[in-house]
Amino acid sequence: MSASEPTAHGTVIQRVTAALCSPASYEQVSHRDRHDVPMPSAAALGEIVGLLQSVLFPGYFGPADLQPATMPFYVGSALDRAARLLAEQIERGLCFACAEGEEGDRCLRCAGQARETADLFLLRLPEVRRLLATDVAAAYEGDPAATSPGEAIFCYPSIRALTHHRLAHELHRLGVPLIPRIVSELAHSATGIDIHPGAAIGERFFMDHGTGIVIGATCRIGREVRVYQGVTLGARSFPLDDQGRPIKGVPRHPIVEDGVILYAGSTILGRVTIGKGAVIGGNVWLTRDVPPGGRVLQGRPEDAALDSGAGI
Amino acid sequence: MSASEPTAHGTVIQRVTAALCSPASYEQVSHRDRHDVPMPSAAALGEIVGLLQSVLFPGYFGPADLQPATMPFYVGSALDRAARLLAEQIERGLCFACAEGEEGDRCLRCAGQARETADLFLLRLPEVRRLLATDVAAAYEGDPAATSPGEAIFCYPSIRALTHHRLAHELHRLGVPLIPRIVSELAHSATGIDIHPGAAIGERFFMDHGTGIVIGATCRIGREVRVYQGVTLGARSFPLDDQGRPIKGVPRHPIVEDGVILYAGSTILGRVTIGKGAVIGGNVWLTRDVPPGGRVLQGRPEDAALDSGAGI
Amino acid sequence: MSASEPTAHGTVIQRVTAALCSPASYEQVSHRDRHDVPMPSAAALGEIVGLLQSVLFPGYFGPADLQPATMPFYVGSALDRAARLLAEQIERGLCFACAEGEEGDRCLRCAGQARETADLFLLRLPEVRRLLATDVAAAYEGDPAATSPGEAIFCYPSIRALTHHRLAHELHRLGVPLIPRIVSELAHSATGIDIHPGAAIGERFFMDHGTGIVIGATCRIGREVRVYQGVTLGARSFPLDDQGRPIKGVPRHPIVEDGVILYAGSTILGRVTIGKGAVIGGNVWLTRDVPPGGRVLQGRPEDAALDSGAGI
Amino acid sequence: MSASEPTAHGTVIQRVTAALCSPASYEQVSHRDRHDVPMPSAAALGEIVGLLQSVLFPGYFGPADLQPATMPFYVGSALDRAARLLAEQIERGLCFACAEGEEGDRCLRCAGQARETADLFLLRLPEVRRLLATDVAAAYEGDPAATSPGEAIFCYPSIRALTHHRLAHELHRLGVPLIPRIVSELAHSATGIDIHPGAAIGERFFMDHGTGIVIGATCRIGREVRVYQGVTLGARSFPLDDQGRPIKGVPRHPIVEDGVILYAGSTILGRVTIGKGAVIGGNVWLTRDVPPGGRVLQGRPEDAALDSGAGI
Amino acid sequence: MSASEPTAHGTVIQRVTAALCSPASYEQVSHRDRHDVPMPSAAALGEIVGLLQSVLFPGYFGPADLQPATMPFYVGSALDRAARLLAEQIERGLCFACAEGEEGDRCLRCAGQARETADLFLLRLPEVRRLLATDVAAAYEGDPAATSPGEAIFCYPSIRALTHHRLAHELHRLGVPLIPRIVSELAHSATGIDIHPGAAIGERFFMDHGTGIVIGATCRIGREVRVYQGVTLGARSFPLDDQGRPIKGVPRHPIVEDGVILYAGSTILGRVTIGKGAVIGGNVWLTRDVPPGGRVLQGRPEDAALDSGAGI
Amino acid sequence: MSASEPTAHGTVIQRVTAALCSPASYEQVSHRDRHDVPMPSAAALGEIVGLLQSVLFPGYFGPADLQPATMPFYVGSALDRAARLLAEQIERGLCFACAEGEEGDRCLRCAGQARETADLFLLRLPEVRRLLATDVAAAYEGDPAATSPGEAIFCYPSIRALTHHRLAHELHRLGVPLIPRIVSELAHSATGIDIHPGAAIGERFFMDHGTGIVIGATCRIGREVRVYQGVTLGARSFPLDDQGRPIKGVPRHPIVEDGVILYAGSTILGRVTIGKGAVIGGNVWLTRDVPPGGRVLQGRPEDAALDSGAGI
Repeated sequence: MSASEPTAHGTVIQRVTAALCSPASYEQVSHRDRHDVPMPSAAALGEIVGLLQSVLFPGYFGPADLQPATMPFYVGSALDRAARLLAEQIERGLCFACAEGEEGDRCLRCAGQARETADLFLLRLPEVRRLLATDVAAAYEGDPAATSPGEAIFCYPSIRALTHHRLAHELHRLGVPLIPRIVSELAHSATGIDIHPGAAIGERFFMDHGTGIVIGATCRIGREVRVYQGVTLGARSFPLDDQGRPIKGVPRHPIVEDGVILYAGSTILGRVTIGKGAVIGGNVWLTRDVPPGGRVLQGRPEDAALDSGAGI
Repeated sequence: MSASEPTAHGTVIQRVTAALCSPASYEQVSHRDRHDVPMPSAAALGEIVGLLQSVLFPGYFGPADLQPATMPFYVGSALDRAARLLAEQIERGLCFACAEGEEGDRCLRCAGQARETADLFLLRLPEVRRLLATDVAAAYEGDPAATSPGEAIFCYPSIRALTHHRLAHELHRLGVPLIPRIVSELAHSATGIDIHPGAAIGERFFMDHGTGIVIGATCRIGREVRVYQGVTLGARSFPLDDQGRPIKGVPRHPIVEDGVILYAGSTILGRVTIGKGAVIGGNVWLTRDVPPGGRVLQGRPEDAALDSGAGI
Repeated sequence: MSASEPTAHGTVIQRVTAALCSPASYEQVSHRDRHDVPMPSAAALGEIVGLLQSVLFPGYFGPADLQPATMPFYVGSALDRAARLLAEQIERGLCFACAEGEEGDRCLRCAGQARETADLFLLRLPEVRRLLATDVAAAYEGDPAATSPGEAIFCYPSIRALTHHRLAHELHRLGVPLIPRIVSELAHSATGIDIHPGAAIGERFFMDHGTGIVIGATCRIGREVRVYQGVTLGARSFPLDDQGRPIKGVPRHPIVEDGVILYAGSTILGRVTIGKGAVIGGNVWLTRDVPPGGRVLQGRPEDAALDSGAGI
Repeated sequence: MSASEPTAHGTVIQRVTAALCSPASYEQVSHRDRHDVPMPSAAALGEIVGLLQSVLFPGYFGPADLQPATMPFYVGSALDRAARLLAEQIERGLCFACAEGEEGDRCLRCAGQARETADLFLLRLPEVRRLLATDVAAAYEGDPAATSPGEAIFCYPSIRALTHHRLAHELHRLGVPLIPRIVSELAHSATGIDIHPGAAIGERFFMDHGTGIVIGATCRIGREVRVYQGVTLGARSFPLDDQGRPIKGVPRHPIVEDGVILYAGSTILGRVTIGKGAVIGGNVWLTRDVPPGGRVLQGRPEDAALDSGAGI
Repeated sequence: MSASEPTAHGTVIQRVTAALCSPASYEQVSHRDRHDVPMPSAAALGEIVGLLQSVLFPGYFGPADLQPATMPFYVGSALDRAARLLAEQIERGLCFACAEGEEGDRCLRCAGQARETADLFLLRLPEVRRLLATDVAAAYEGDPAATSPGEAIFCYPSIRALTHHRLAHELHRLGVPLIPRIVSELAHSATGIDIHPGAAIGERFFMDHGTGIVIGATCRIGREVRVYQGVTLGARSFPLDDQGRPIKGVPRHPIVEDGVILYAGSTILGRVTIGKGAVIGGNVWLTRDVPPGGRVLQGRPEDAALDSGAGI
Repeated sequence: MSASEPTAHGTVIQRVTAALCSPASYEQVSHRDRHDVPMPSAAALGEIVGLLQSVLFPGYFGPADLQPATMPFYVGSALDRAARLLAEQIERGLCFACAEGEEGDRCLRCAGQARETADLFLLRLPEVRRLLATDVAAAYEGDPAATSPGEAIFCYPSIRALTHHRLAHELHRLGVPLIPRIVSELAHSATGIDIHPGAAIGERFFMDHGTGIVIGATCRIGREVRVYQGVTLGARSFPLDDQGRPIKGVPRHPIVEDGVILYAGSTILGRVTIGKGAVIGGNVWLTRDVPPGGRVLQGRPEDAALDSGAGI
């Protein structure tokens, strides 16, 4: 670096620092909590999910050879570790909501509350495992390419995403802010499956391939439902308040009843009901109810000669 | 933590541990192999693929400046290292299949067999590289945004996914259980492209953007095929056995002949044949044969005024 | 390993090494730069983006509790660190282009040029932050499930992808080769959103869910545009040169004017213009202009009884 | 693992667990703090020392090329980061002392107190640097093998140990429990030099080679003192209380006045005074005062023929 | 790198490789085991010792707040994990001895034997803890600078070295080759205290400061012994076999009876006995028995004027 | 943190930053090189030594099972990698010396020179290995506790320190500044053995236990020399220049001839000669020549009754 450059570079650093540190620049995009509590950590939440996977699916994740005699040691210590880590993240989530909150600003900071919530969450794990066991069976039975239920547990995106979702959903039901969303985004990033923690999903749920699936916050999905890649269960429109902002919390996503199949790329929007046993074909765009047993297919594509060229 | 809390927390841990360690709870979702062999490791397989990338694309991955005089040292040691790591993973895959297997339960544990298979796999690498070189040329020639073949090698999802696939496909052909699937899921998670290791894909294959592409286990794809994001080559229906479970291994995915182009979001299901040089338009849902040279487009969308509101 | 095996294995290693080190095998797929400069590093670029995130969104990323008194220390040191790391990556990108380049082969290696470019890039950060602040507001206002702007900053794929894009776009405008593409692929892999660094995107842009979105290199997008998952803004065809290769750099992607909404799965190809305030319905395939205020929906799907069976 | 082994192994685990979890077994060797605060972390303290090294010796540690224009950014952010990390460790140290304490059990837990102490500590850094600069000069001038003062800063055990000591000594003076000791043990483990944080050491102190040097808690060392490897400045005897335990805090280590040289392996015990400018020869064992300017040598070794054999 | 350099460098690599791969060069310094078992791993042994520290000193190492209700989960899982890791290392140690062995070459490879040995080792842990608890008490009572027994557990080199030694000694007694030595070298490197795993050491042992202490393989040390830094308990001479090599396994190090104190830097060589309650002064060199209660001091150093100059 | 504290803390950070960034404070202790080249990296040098260990002792370090057929691949790639890493460190060392230098300030920066030096260094490796093989034999034969030569290679501090020294010595002979010293400090920190890179040491050198050994820069040691822990071969005095600084580079350490044994804790100072086959007893302090075959022992310690009390 020649003698003159450092000055130029140093000037740039000073100028940009000054610009970015002016309150007018950062006021919309900076965070400052009220109790010096750090932001939640996606890495810690990933570790927590990993601990819980080893507890929910013993032998598949975590130590490979668990004997009945030693299993309680592993399960108990993993649960305790997960509870402690989770309590810290819940506290961070509570503080985040408190600092950002527009709705009441009631200060929720309370390490004790976070710990109690973590314990309540643990008590839901046996039910979470029961549901996941039905999802595993559905995956194995619904995919001709599956060679064993264990393969589904160990490497299917559907089970990976549902493990995250069913855990995030319990946290959501316990009123924990932000944290469930981070957990679901971990699965979204890894699998391309985006399930809002609020969605209620019945047993024996299977998503084949999965990439691009979107399931909205107020969806209610029955049992034995099968969904393929690229399916959207979204909102069609949402009422605005008098400031033109969407009103939060209104039911606005589909109800999908038992035994429905949604083929790849179909898009279903709004608080419609897809009746029991209905089948929606691929790439369909649908914004109305479908009766039980109904079948909806895309309009038949025309065959047509195309102009020459590299494109169509 | 106050004096009373620890007891409450301790009780929760004990209760949940007991619930999760009851055989009725874990029997469907736990794994115990027969020979105290650990589960396969996705991290190790990722490292193996990384070693092989450095061998297949010297200078792009691994050490940057390879001279002809030193290249054999790097290639030879990377191959030996990859072979050893892979042999261990293959052995784990064999043991997994043995423990989970429903079809014969023949015990396959044999470190020697795993090592032989790893060596047979290595012998396929020159052909894998030859195929990938054609894929690189296709990517460069097929994407106006590509500035050099090297850019495609270094950062195109298509080449990343095909490197994983062509390696996984060789392992699949050698009869290795589970491991090929994990390799393909690594690419699926990173790129959103889901190619089953069983799919047979010809040379000069190019997937632009890639996210959401699904290529099923029994697909057969010719040479010079171009596929865009969101395309599904899936199964339409599959015969069930007398217990209502899908029969495994039946050809059920499309045959795509040479020179076909499949535009974004098209869904092609079943053992249909898309004839040589055919073009399938975007967002089409297709479950029948298309003759050579055929063009299939989505039905023309109507223009329609919509109600006011934030949605449609 | 028995006495005879090592020989067999050793022979395999030697044979495959020899095959892969023959120039005929590697010439199409190997890289050798001209100045012994390493390949760019995706990990380093990820670290740089992380540093810039902590600068752009103070308190959300990086240290959690920044006081006005200490913020300049963090911002200044992060900027200086990012500038140094980036200058090295830019130099690597310049050398890569030089080694691979077909268009002139002018040798660009110059550490000084790389450093100057990095400084010019820093000067754009205040504007990048200003744009991102509008994107955050749009995300919060456009998603009924969002509980605060901070939630969007901290965990929405839209903001993650736009942070990468708006940084990559500035590097692209400064003429830096390869590096912007790697930055955008980092976001693509993590979010499933694929925005070419060349795309010009106005303020208040929001992508809900995001997986599968593709935005091509020559797109021009206005302000206040909303795009849902699975939307493609792609090329329809591209002129070939006399050797049958696509001509690079021609405008070939859509122009999307202010206030447009593109629903999930719609595919818009070619240099068409979607007029101000238009709405494109889900799963539509579109290759022509849409006038301002226009609405385009998919042809209405038919209801049809289907044959029984597991499929459709 | 054969069918019978797991039982045997499982039994061992259960038996040993039960034995180690009986209160009679663990009561003397377990720790349970009173406020659920973790134990101090040697790794965090190592990171803090590293941050402070980069601040004290800019350019030698931390970023290599600091310009005057950017130095404050690095220094300020490193100080703030170190202060936060240190405040947490100080709080842990306070809680540890509270839980273990026999002297009053006054509960000291107070994050605020810890933060204030960390800030008071920072205010001492300019003086710490001033002292270390004199130590660097002494090392360079006192070692014929030193090629520059920078070499001493960058890789001499003497400077490494003194950096730890002078920082630990300030923490000790601020009354912080346990933490200073951990900091000094980090240096002890890395250099073999064991200086108790309580020792008061003047400027221009130099320890050549260093391994085996021990400097006790109540030592007072003047300026311009030089000490070689293996020198002990220890206690000779210490008064016991009525329960036979050593009374803590009594001055019991040597006073070493200005300009003294202590050669390798000498051992000086008790509250003796080594007068100004004295020289103590190698391997001497000394338990009495030495007047200013005195010289003390080991008794002259005899020359003697020895029996043959491998030993002596 | 200019065009000519690569050749020169490549030639160097080829030449040196050829030289180092000639059997005459490597035959004395290379290892090849008989069963393709890797070398023992110091990192794994460090992890094992860490697990056992968390079990032996609960709350000081490992999770900080163990309740009686959850302690068994942590202890049990840490024991099981340590046993598995250790069994693998023991197997490696057996294979190493088999490959290197000159004494019989009986092939000991047996994963089962390694696992049984690991279990036998675990059964000794309660006794190891009991001994260490006495060492902790001795450290606290013997060092006026110690503020609590917990401080000794958490950061005294004496306890760190004795934890390693008492574990290594049990492995040594179980006949495990090489592994105990690696464990003791871990402590040697971290503390400067070198205790051979074969040494038998009674309860309430304390080493103050520790650096430079050497305790030989056939030492027998009673209870309540205190040793200072730099003390050697070594061999004086050892009988040679007819090839001039030392005969292994002969008792050749001191016997130190109960209550002995050995001051800093004293050197005691040979199979001598230091009688009960004896005190050996600093820097003494001793090769004969000392009766119970005896005191041995270094010859009184003379006071002598020295010549001027920087040295002595 | 209450509302007032942040201000106080912020003020502290600002004040201390300002104090530490005043040139008067940092001028003696800061570094700024002339070409923006980073400081040498101890971590990188540790990695280089690790690569060379795997080359020098194949099978003990690095991959465990090397066959003759694959060994050249590992050796060649490790050498090339080590050469590249080392060339970078050598360049940093040259720049460091240039920036710090008082003796001429000739700018040595030259990546090419660094690469050439690294290649010259590699050419010395066969001789380094030959010497180390003799050291291994000496360790095995000289230590009754050694069970095989391999144990010495794998875990004896003597071999670890000599590997570092013999490599550092070659770098020293090639005139590389600073880097050899860092390499020797790595060994010093890990083993407590401090050998200056300048020391010339003959074959079959063995240091038992090793902690506290110091061997000065101008020592010359013959073959078949055995040295025990705590031995110093140091300088006695050194001539000063007219500014009172020690004159660098003067021979000032002992010459130790073939076959000498130096027992634990002996201190030998100055340019004296210890004649062939001489034996120096433990804890001796020696500043004069010893003839060939001479024996020097410590003056016989007196037996003396001591006063009672905890001390002596």
